[in-house]
Amino acid sequence: MELANEKPYVIGLDMGGTNSVFGIVDQRGNIVAQTAIKTKGHPDINDYVKDSIEALQPALDMVGGIENIRGMGIGAPNGNYYSGTIEYAPNLEWKGIVPIAELFEKALGIPVRVTNDANAAAMGEMAYGVAKGMKNFIMITLGTGVGSGIVVDGKLVYGCDGFAGELGHLVVDHTEEGRECGCGRKGCLECYCSATGVARTAREFLAKSDAPSPLRELDPDNITSFDVFQAAEKGDQIALDIFNFTGELLGRSCADFATFSSPEAFVFFGGLCKAGHYIMDPIKKAYDEHILNIYKGKAQLLVSSLKGSEAAVLGASAIGWE
Amino acid sequence: MELANEKPYVIGLDMGGTNSVFGIVDQRGNIVAQTAIKTKGHPDINDYVKDSIEALQPALDMVGGIENIRGMGIGAPNGNYYSGTIEYAPNLEWKGIVPIAELFEKALGIPVRVTNDANAAAMGEMAYGVAKGMKNFIMITLGTGVGSGIVVDGKLVYGCDGFAGELGHLVVDHTEEGRECGCGRKGCLECYCSATGVARTAREFLAKSDAPSPLRELDPDNITSFDVFQAAEKGDQIALDIFNFTGELLGRSCADFATFSSPEAFVFFGGLCKAGHYIMDPIKKAYDEHILNIYKGKAQLLVSSLKGSEAAVLGASAIGWE
Repeated sequence: MELANEKPYVIGLDMGGTNSVFGIVDQRGNIVAQTAIKTKGHPDINDYVKDSIEALQPALDMVGGIENIRGMGIGAPNGNYYSGTIEYAPNLEWKGIVPIAELFEKALGIPVRVTNDANAAAMGEMAYGVAKGMKNFIMITLGTGVGSGIVVDGKLVYGCDGFAGELGHLVVDHTEEGRECGCGRKGCLECYCSATGVARTAREFLAKSDAPSPLRELDPDNITSFDVFQAAEKGDQIALDIFNFTGELLGRSCADFATFSSPEAFVFFGGLCKAGHYIMDPIKKAYDEHILNIYKGKAQLLVSSLKGSEAAVLGASAIGWE
Repeated sequence: MELANEKPYVIGLDMGGTNSVFGIVDQRGNIVAQTAIKTKGHPDINDYVKDSIEALQPALDMVGGIENIRGMGIGAPNGNYYSGTIEYAPNLEWKGIVPIAELFEKALGIPVRVTNDANAAAMGEMAYGVAKGMKNFIMITLGTGVGSGIVVDGKLVYGCDGFAGELGHLVVDHTEEGRECGCGRKGCLECYCSATGVARTAREFLAKSDAPSPLRELDPDNITSFDVFQAAEKGDQIALDIFNFTGELLGRSCADFATFSSPEAFVFFGGLCKAGHYIMDPIKKAYDEHILNIYKGKAQLLVSSLKGSEAAVLGASAIGWE
């Protein structure tokens, strides 16, 4: 990424359901300027783009204007790299297919690339994070859902339609007892290892035991992995059981993913990672137990090194260099 | 693959545990000359290479000699594309790591590439078969084992070590009841959908029912998918149940694989495919039932169009063009 005599900055846009955060990023991954607008409140996408440009202007001025910007990368829910569109995103107010790249390209006069959040995170890790220099790794994002970005031979896997890499929807329980998933099927990894999955596990584990636990004092519908972490720090057995259960499923699933692309690393990102060794130890244990012999000892299991607040913007910016 | 003014042929070597078949292949995928030697009986790999060259000579003479050969491709068990070696192949008499590409390069003076059987099959389909022109597809080989070759963006996925694409070892039954696999684990897809897997299913289904079946006349340890096909043709319900069970697992697993690389096709190859609609119908049914919404209707489920006897040699030859 040494680009002597080239334009020295890119714009990264992390578009969430609530906020849209813009960063101007240099080649070393420093966010030199940042701004944000509300994603919501723009029923017309053109108004969203107009407000974005307006908010960006002071940041652009700081780096000498748009002439110094090489391109823009957008990480957005249901972002499609091939078409530069956002397609049927359930958490955004624009329905159908939104030609987001085209709209920003017209408004800014620079090339714009779009991808989904997890793919952007993978690009961010490869450009600026723990996956720097890696050619084959799998990013697993543990948030409201479970997302993934798969890098093979130095490139993101997009598949035939731009939507490859939905490992959160690998089915880990094919029995009738599989948890119902938002996708309409049962037993997806996401139902167990997302934020809501962990809360659900907590409810189940609390219900089937009488042991005292600090988790019993919380609203059972909204227990977060951070709550579970705090309970684990107090030595709570139920909290430890929740992490063991969640980590076992993640580690076992990563062993399955390895049969696909034999990566040199899995990189985990998101709230669950804040639990540190409480979650990473059971992931590693299950991975080692379940991994096929020929892959043994080859993949590292890593936690993202990017700061949570910056990671999404850096990830989005990373595809702006292309 | 239009190579005007280039050397017009490649050598393909399909190395099996018993036989090694060599073909000289033109750019359209015609095998213009063919020869074979026994793989076994050469405890020293140098003797194997020497015998191969000797056997190849008349075929080379037919096409004007080695000057007309662009390269050689080898499909071999445990073949590693990165290193050009065969590594710890349980069914070959050479132990440890065999530098097969280097040995043939020295002997023939042309570039030599190695990969495993399933990857070679994928290259063959992409160069000459039903996957011609496709950039994203997954080859599933149903033989003694279940192998796979994954093509992403027009290239085989090799991973960090050259051994990516072992989808036969995706675990489809994580319960204690999962069948024991040769890999030392339990419940791998291969234990159900390989030749021995189908025979095992047949034994189980025959044991748990009293219904008459032509399959009862056969040696239960060696029932093949072709035997089951012949029984199905006679309207045998147990045979139909065996195909439904096997196809359900394959279709469901392909739906899982789609979450990885969102392919435009799955291409099936091997003995089981001879059962035609008896196996393909349940595969398609299960795939449609289990596939994630966003991928619905995107991937074709195809049977290899290459003749069984030629496919492996053509597949191996395909990597010789690189």
